[in-house]
Amino acid sequence: MSSNVRIALDAMGGDNAPDIVVSGASIARKRYPNLNLSFIGDSNKIRVLIKKYKNLSNAKIIHADDVVGSETRPAQALRHGKKTSMWLAVNEVASKNADAIVSAGNTGALMAISKLQLRMINGVTRPAIAGFIPTLKGLSCMLDLGANISCDADQLLQFAIMGTAFSAAVENITNPSVGLLNVGTEASKGDGVLRQAGKLLTESPLNFIGNVEGNDIFYGKVDVVVCDGLTGNVALKSSEGLAQLIRHHLKAEFSRSLYGKIASIVSLPIFKRISNILDHRTYNGAALVGLDGIVFKSHGSADEFAFTCAIKRAAHAVENDLNGKIRTAIIGEQSCRKNLSLVS
Amino acid sequence: MSSNVRIALDAMGGDNAPDIVVSGASIARKRYPNLNLSFIGDSNKIRVLIKKYKNLSNAKIIHADDVVGSETRPAQALRHGKKTSMWLAVNEVASKNADAIVSAGNTGALMAISKLQLRMINGVTRPAIAGFIPTLKGLSCMLDLGANISCDADQLLQFAIMGTAFSAAVENITNPSVGLLNVGTEASKGDGVLRQAGKLLTESPLNFIGNVEGNDIFYGKVDVVVCDGLTGNVALKSSEGLAQLIRHHLKAEFSRSLYGKIASIVSLPIFKRISNILDHRTYNGAALVGLDGIVFKSHGSADEFAFTCAIKRAAHAVENDLNGKIRTAIIGEQSCRKNLSLVS
Repeated sequence: MSSNVRIALDAMGGDNAPDIVVSGASIARKRYPNLNLSFIGDSNKIRVLIKKYKNLSNAKIIHADDVVGSETRPAQALRHGKKTSMWLAVNEVASKNADAIVSAGNTGALMAISKLQLRMINGVTRPAIAGFIPTLKGLSCMLDLGANISCDADQLLQFAIMGTAFSAAVENITNPSVGLLNVGTEASKGDGVLRQAGKLLTESPLNFIGNVEGNDIFYGKVDVVVCDGLTGNVALKSSEGLAQLIRHHLKAEFSRSLYGKIASIVSLPIFKRISNILDHRTYNGAALVGLDGIVFKSHGSADEFAFTCAIKRAAHAVENDLNGKIRTAIIGEQSCRKNLSLVS
Repeated sequence: MSSNVRIALDAMGGDNAPDIVVSGASIARKRYPNLNLSFIGDSNKIRVLIKKYKNLSNAKIIHADDVVGSETRPAQALRHGKKTSMWLAVNEVASKNADAIVSAGNTGALMAISKLQLRMINGVTRPAIAGFIPTLKGLSCMLDLGANISCDADQLLQFAIMGTAFSAAVENITNPSVGLLNVGTEASKGDGVLRQAGKLLTESPLNFIGNVEGNDIFYGKVDVVVCDGLTGNVALKSSEGLAQLIRHHLKAEFSRSLYGKIASIVSLPIFKRISNILDHRTYNGAALVGLDGIVFKSHGSADEFAFTCAIKRAAHAVENDLNGKIRTAIIGEQSCRKNLSLVS
């Protein structure tokens, strides 16, 4: 990280706030001393926690009286949330005091508050949630993960554009390949929306390789998986559910007998390696792409290591000008379509 | 199994046909001697295979010249498929020579051919694909798994009705609980279609417990998971993809070093038990519910054991009058809504 990157942290968002926000921030600063971090939340609590970490001694603290609850509805948060840590943290980006904000709080409220304060990048019709997932080949980006339940073809095309920029800016992937999530690989599959989206993607300058199926996500067939928010959210969460089911049976069977217990001790170093490879904390940090400001969402149950990963992703997005890339790509696509319509 | 159950088998459908169809049928007959099986396909090939199994000596063989290819489009299969094993197998049900048909062939073609020949149960607007999945609590039914990409609220309600009947008839679950797949559990979540479906389900006599999320599927929070075909298909396949990713890393890490290899030998009996518990072959056999005839789809890559499971499910559906249950429930729901509209 070369120049200073200023990140506002919603210190009160998430299940383990403010503790893991502060300790995660300290770990992040150790690795990236050029990070300029500010904490927004209960200043008394933050001050006490910060004292434990020397490298946070000059961090800025902005007091917030209130917190957005995990069950608070977005509309509620918009109406009564102006004194919350989330609101004031987003405000740091809106008023150019910070380059990005990271919050582990309520996703719907974060989207609503960010949309109101930051607005959208010119030409973007709907922001989306973009995250990374582990695959056989490394990691892939998937969007939308739940901001838009149903989408039209133009929105799916925009998700592909934003996902391409996200993948390039945050994980340095060159010319990311894009796939449209569908029930089969043939172009004829899906309903009118998916077929039209496939057509738009084929005509676009993106590296679109066609439809992909659910199993292709974890095979890493493409760098960017495009889908509506319901499908993306369900795919991600159902996989989490299956992983837990497998973990449950592994634990149960390895502890059922003395033999199993011995086998588990023998296998421990290998299980540790596998769990490092598949460690979901490494993939923490989803971007709310399409907003005119960089907003990252950490998992609500993140620990300090997971939160550090979200901060790191936000910093990469700032350094590699994620939103500049999205802006250019959206303008490029629009002028390209304008030209196409002039020709036809 | 008390009385005779007549099942027509598409002997040529699937990757390993006709071999596994015949051997799977023999295993099924060993366990259920009252099964009355007929094989539809290349009679020469079938005759040779059948000779190996004494308990199939009196099975009926119906010759079919042609096979539906795995890549054949449904419309193509309808136009040119009248001599295929799939068409003639479905015809056995249409002409009341069989109580059910099982095919491991092309899903889209099977749906199209069955819809044309069997029509739908009175009042059903769209048939759906219903399958079982392993959960922490046993197994749950999920539908639709890919027949209908997008659905309206009334269709989702009908899926719930049919899924309830399926769960009760095929797995003997009493008063199955129903959940609507969504991005959150609150009734306010989702788009207009999901909220309206939630409302209809709440008003229905079904055991509806509300919205469920992706991770709830494998936790077994409900007996019946209701969703549109895109979401269901992607959820199922992405979980299969993740399972393969985990299997890949287990294999790779346990074979990386001599220590790993020894640990894997020690752990083998435990891994075998886990793989028995999660054996996807046990869950083989999805029903095309809503058709006026019982149609079961086996996974295309099924082996003989998996195919036996599909036959067993089809037999249970016949014995427990799956379609009678669906018919009664659909009529009940319609008269209930008529009464509601008279009241309001």
